Amino acid sequence: MFANNEIGTIEPIEKIGEITKKNNIIFHTDAVQAIGNLKIDVKKYNIDLLSMSGHKFYAPKGIGALYVRKDVNFERLQDGGHQEKDKRAGTENVPGIVGLGKAIELSYKNIDDYNKKLTFLRDYFIQQIERKIPNAKLNGHRINRLPGNCNFSFPGIDAEEILYKLDEKGICASSGSACSTGNPNPSHVLLAIGLEPELSKGTLRVTFGDENTKEDVDYLINCLTELVLK
Amino acid sequence: MFANNEIGTIEPIEKIGEITKKNNIIFHTDAVQAIGNLKIDVKKYNIDLLSMSGHKFYAPKGIGALYVRKDVNFERLQDGGHQEKDKRAGTENVPGIVGLGKAIELSYKNIDDYNKKLTFLRDYFIQQIERKIPNAKLNGHRINRLPGNCNFSFPGIDAEEILYKLDEKGICASSGSACSTGNPNPSHVLLAIGLEPELSKGTLRVTFGDENTKEDVDYLINCLTELVLK
Repeated sequence: MFANNEIGTIEPIEKIGEITKKNNIIFHTDAVQAIGNLKIDVKKYNIDLLSMSGHKFYAPKGIGALYVRKDVNFERLQDGGHQEKDKRAGTENVPGIVGLGKAIELSYKNIDDYNKKLTFLRDYFIQQIERKIPNAKLNGHRINRLPGNCNFSFPGIDAEEILYKLDEKGICASSGSACSTGNPNPSHVLLAIGLEPELSKGTLRVTFGDENTKEDVDYLINCLTELVLK
Repeated sequence: MFANNEIGTIEPIEKIGEITKKNNIIFHTDAVQAIGNLKIDVKKYNIDLLSMSGHKFYAPKGIGALYVRKDVNFERLQDGGHQEKDKRAGTENVPGIVGLGKAIELSYKNIDDYNKKLTFLRDYFIQQIERKIPNAKLNGHRINRLPGNCNFSFPGIDAEEILYKLDEKGICASSGSACSTGNPNPSHVLLAIGLEPELSKGTLRVTFGDENTKEDVDYLINCLTELVLK
């Protein structure tokens, strides 16, 4: 992963790329969270394959792309038609493809301003939560993390309950990955970084995006503080 | 296949369903060409699985669906997220799904009128071509065929050349399946029904749709006759 979907930590991709190149290893990175948020130079980082998902940078839902460096070959997953140079059978999602292309163009046009804003909202949120809820534990790297990503554990709290109550107040957040929705087990990411299962159940992921303002973040801080401290 | 994509022949699905049911065989049908054109009763026909593709009935391109009878189980093709009851990983194409649902609703609302119109255009086209180009050979079943499908072979003709010239006149037709675009070999369907490879190269598929009128078909007949007889 270029950057983790739950805790937002950005991996040392350039260093990994040096190692894989030196050892002649094909390097694929899941950049779903990173694309649209970070500047990625596939040549500089020695990335051979990179996957992305459109809805992460405001393209329509249901479209993604795999970057494949010239000369890199791979086996197709499904048989059928000869679309996409024989690599992916099926009639192409034309509106999705066009939407993805336009969305990434727009994303990178304003990426510096966008990241500056998101990083400000993120750091403001982290600072305020740590001040108001002293036992809150920030997960993931404090600086090398996705601009819009915050992930906190609150001891003794049931995150699912907090999520329902935030939802009632018009706030969408999550306790883990959408890919694991309905799975009651603790997040494998949180367990892997050493969190106790109990604490992982009190973990909330909050991400900010294009339309969020400082007022939104203040509202969230107030709601969340009230719910956690009650 | 419920109905063939090249020659339009409708298969005896109900009879096949009787056999598969009697012998406890899971019955999947590729109904991509049939959905939106034919009335399909999966229970009556003993169909266990049925696949469809949205753009065949005016849904957006890039969305399809697999009908799965309750109790029928199958292995997923790709690992990843737990979307779609663990059967297909990946963020869902929400606009496509909604579009497919609405399109199929609209298709079946007017299906009788739609089919009557398409069958009239089809039979009119077949009759006129057979009258004007006496050595033209209709492929597929004359009656048990998709309402909008015509498939003719013209001895001594290069279909690819005719297609380019039709395209110049604003007419889109094809020489085979879109899944085989770029494949210079004769259509496996035409070879399977006994056509000589030479004749299969002189084969055109013409399909009519929602927006076509009798005037369109007359224009096509004139253009095609001129090109084939020149």
